[in-house]
Amino acid sequence: MNYCSSCGNSVTLRIPEGDDRERYVCVSCEAIHYTNPRVIVGCLPVHEGRVLLCRRAIEPRRDFWTLPAGFMENGETSAAGAARETWEEAEAKAVDLQLYRIFDVPHISQIYMFYRCGIEGGAFGAGPESVESALFEEAQIPWDEIAFPVVYKALKEYFDDRRKGEYPVRVSSIERLRRPG
Amino acid sequence: MNYCSSCGNSVTLRIPEGDDRERYVCVSCEAIHYTNPRVIVGCLPVHEGRVLLCRRAIEPRRDFWTLPAGFMENGETSAAGAARETWEEAEAKAVDLQLYRIFDVPHISQIYMFYRCGIEGGAFGAGPESVESALFEEAQIPWDEIAFPVVYKALKEYFDDRRKGEYPVRVSSIERLRRPG
Ligand SMILES: [Zn+2]
Ligand SMILES: [Zn+2]
Repeated sequence: MNYCSSCGNSVTLRIPEGDDRERYVCVSCEAIHYTNPRVIVGCLPVHEGRVLLCRRAIEPRRDFWTLPAGFMENGETSAAGAARETWEEAEAKAVDLQLYRIFDVPHISQIYMFYRCGIEGGAFGAGPESVESALFEEAQIPWDEIAFPVVYKALKEYFDDRRKGEYPVRVSSIERLRRPG
Repeated sequence: MNYCSSCGNSVTLRIPEGDDRERYVCVSCEAIHYTNPRVIVGCLPVHEGRVLLCRRAIEPRRDFWTLPAGFMENGETSAAGAARETWEEAEAKAVDLQLYRIFDVPHISQIYMFYRCGIEGGAFGAGPESVESALFEEAQIPWDEIAFPVVYKALKEYFDDRRKGEYPVRVSSIERLRRPG
């Protein structure tokens, strides 16, 4: 951030009075420009025991498989956002959404919220950000080609929970991944 | 938003290519400036069966009682943010945090995340945004002086859940309140 979005003058990083951390503050109008974590909402859609995954048509992790998810928009609920993303990426209508898994990803200031859901009519397709979508049995999941750690972990937990017949809502943190080598 | 925070030129509201809603786009550098919902994290702190509430020293809802909560900051987890707010507003050290209640508040583009927690040593005080803090038995809760609908609802549910001995994680949406009159 270089300029004030209110008045167009320069901003400087400083600790405002009464605050305890640096913010971008306008040198002219003194507006404080906060930046906050972003919420990513998505679904874990299941139809007849199989999970719907999308193969990404875009970077990052192009050609890897993911659950439909994306940035929550202003004015929507987290569930509505998760259903919207499922429609946009997998052309599937999410039904019976149940909050399932929350991940904090503090090093990139994101929170993921995944809902379990059904798929209306079992119908799906591929939106503009997906090469294809497909339903996978547990044994067919392409574990080595999953796009993101949060997706891998949510899927592993889902199949474990399914064996137990219980789907508790969990929250945990994903730390920065160390690259091998 | 009037100006581009990257280059300082004007922004205009338009639908970027491949998008489906209006964004602030810079007329010069073409940066797209997204705005997204903000996350408010807080605690429902309990010590020896009593719930810790803070009486607000600031607007909105000055002098009304609330649970300690505030905007999640970049680089922290939701639980760390909830504990931070509990320290800042009630000078209480939150321990044993358990995710409890999520509220979508779409008309103001916010998500609340409340954690149940204990209070280390039962010690608390009042931070700069609080007039005072106090522990309340259920029968003592000042129900007519609760600052926000999400706090009222979380407290009601907490006491109901306590009677059942189960604390399921819930998510629901709070719609715009109609003013009487
Ligand atoms: Zn300014
Ligand atoms: Zn610009």
